[in-house]
Amino acid sequence: MPASDFALHPRLAADTTFVADWPLARVLLMDDARHPWLILVPRRAGATEIFDLDAADRAVLIEEISRAGEGLKNLTGAAKINVGALGNLVAQLHVHIVARNIGDAAWPGPVWGQGTTEPYAPEVRDRFIGQLVNAL
Amino acid sequence: MPASDFALHPRLAADTTFVADWPLARVLLMDDARHPWLILVPRRAGATEIFDLDAADRAVLIEEISRAGEGLKNLTGAAKINVGALGNLVAQLHVHIVARNIGDAAWPGPVWGQGTTEPYAPEVRDRFIGQLVNAL
Repeated sequence: MPASDFALHPRLAADTTFVADWPLARVLLMDDARHPWLILVPRRAGATEIFDLDAADRAVLIEEISRAGEGLKNLTGAAKINVGALGNLVAQLHVHIVARNIGDAAWPGPVWGQGTTEPYAPEVRDRFIGQLVNAL
Repeated sequence: MPASDFALHPRLAADTTFVADWPLARVLLMDDARHPWLILVPRRAGATEIFDLDAADRAVLIEEISRAGEGLKNLTGAAKINVGALGNLVAQLHVHIVARNIGDAAWPGPVWGQGTTEPYAPEVRDRFIGQLVNAL
């Protein structure tokens, strides 16, 4: 489907702040100060699985996953980057890129569905987004 | 590093059964009958993050992720495919491809770190691997 039909799922819109539009994906910051956490949403209406994208889009997606992960690691000094495309609750295809550290709020388990979200203070969030725009 | 230096992490070897070697990744079946669950391990020594692979390998990886996910969905009729590269416990780069269904043992949460593994009966496992080899 054409990119022009793309609309961000309301749940993703409510939980995140815009960072950038890359060639394929919208880059969002998850509003949870427990973990530096990006979400990439390919701007392709109707896609719910990676294999719903065509091969050209998949080739871009893996490069954007790599770019987001490496940038987030460099910026935060994370011990490990977690990448996940689950979609059990929000079907719209989206890829989580999460900076993890030993002893963080969910370590060594996954971040999804764990504990209670801790929204950023707006000025902290906006400063972090400025750093992300430079680092990614 | 050359592919010849690749060795499967002992924990991954202990938890899985061999399915196939694809151009980049070794394909393994997680020995947990609760979820149809594949693991792709790129045969590249020392890689722990997707961005540790070079761009050519990444392009192959996303195609193998897509192939595994689509094949697993077609074979099992899963409602959703979950894809994850975490590595908090086993650093060697590996990608989980998990068939999920509403009401399964972890639904709608992630499968990682949930409950207790239920090993397959050997004949059930071997029959499923035969089906996977045909379907993927």
